Amino acid sequence: MRASVHRAVEELLSEQPAEEVTLPLIATRAGVHPTTVYRRWGSLADLLSEVASSRFSGDIVVPDTGDVREDLERWATAVATDLADPDTLAIMRAALGAGPDGGCACTADRHAQLEAILERERSRGGRTPSVEEASDGLLGPLYYRALFTQLPVTAEWVRGLVRKLLS
Amino acid sequence: MRASVHRAVEELLSEQPAEEVTLPLIATRAGVHPTTVYRRWGSLADLLSEVASSRFSGDIVVPDTGDVREDLERWATAVATDLADPDTLAIMRAALGAGPDGGCACTADRHAQLEAILERERSRGGRTPSVEEASDGLLGPLYYRALFTQLPVTAEWVRGLVRKLLS
Repeated sequence: MRASVHRAVEELLSEQPAEEVTLPLIATRAGVHPTTVYRRWGSLADLLSEVASSRFSGDIVVPDTGDVREDLERWATAVATDLADPDTLAIMRAALGAGPDGGCACTADRHAQLEAILERERSRGGRTPSVEEASDGLLGPLYYRALFTQLPVTAEWVRGLVRKLLS
Repeated sequence: MRASVHRAVEELLSEQPAEEVTLPLIATRAGVHPTTVYRRWGSLADLLSEVASSRFSGDIVVPDTGDVREDLERWATAVATDLADPDTLAIMRAALGAGPDGGCACTADRHAQLEAILERERSRGGRTPSVEEASDGLLGPLYYRALFTQLPVTAEWVRGLVRKLLS
């Protein structure tokens, strides 16, 4: 049931404005009784957080090239590619819109991935920025550009962010 | 009418989950007939964009200390203070959640303010980052931290962002 409800959320958000995507509509699309959905998830906000957490986990393979700059460039490019997908952005916007917990659900795994890349470099004896600095320098501009601007995300721009972070 | 509808949106978003804030509820709170609200704004997304655009314009005085670093620090601190207000974040999240245009509505004036600070420095003969670089380095981390993390926003952290941008 969980999978079909998640799929219903993703389908509906790709088809219509978020304001029209309600728990009863999701239940109907998933072929589940609305009461069951209310009992299991409680609120649309909780359901959207769960969908976001699941959608934005384990979807990007953390690169391991032996070079931290190369790893960060590849990883940030993969995050940027994901953020260029309108359906991805629709899930993220809906999770953010539903309440204060939606944001962390979208990015908890991104922080873990970034930490893994940096930790590997430190285990090789390299010096790295902290995960907070890397998050400020990479995730900040990437997510800001995707959500708040119509500026393009190019490979050259992503490399520039990594260069600035490591400088 | 516009002012009372805007106020109704802000009040309702500060009181209850965004998923429960609908056009009919907004109309009732504002003492306006729902049909009038539908006719004037068309959709909740359009209304939320307008509220965000109005709320996030002209609210921060652009500093003019004669020193670009000082101006950027003061301005970024004012943006950070605004983002620390739960009611501010509720409006921003709702505008983002409602559709793809909500983001620009929240930040168009911030970009204009940043451009004004940088332009003033250039008119004094100083060299500055572009408005895109400044947006990546300041607005990116500020908005990312407010929306996606539970990390604190401190004056020292804001100064560090400005230092990194101007380095």
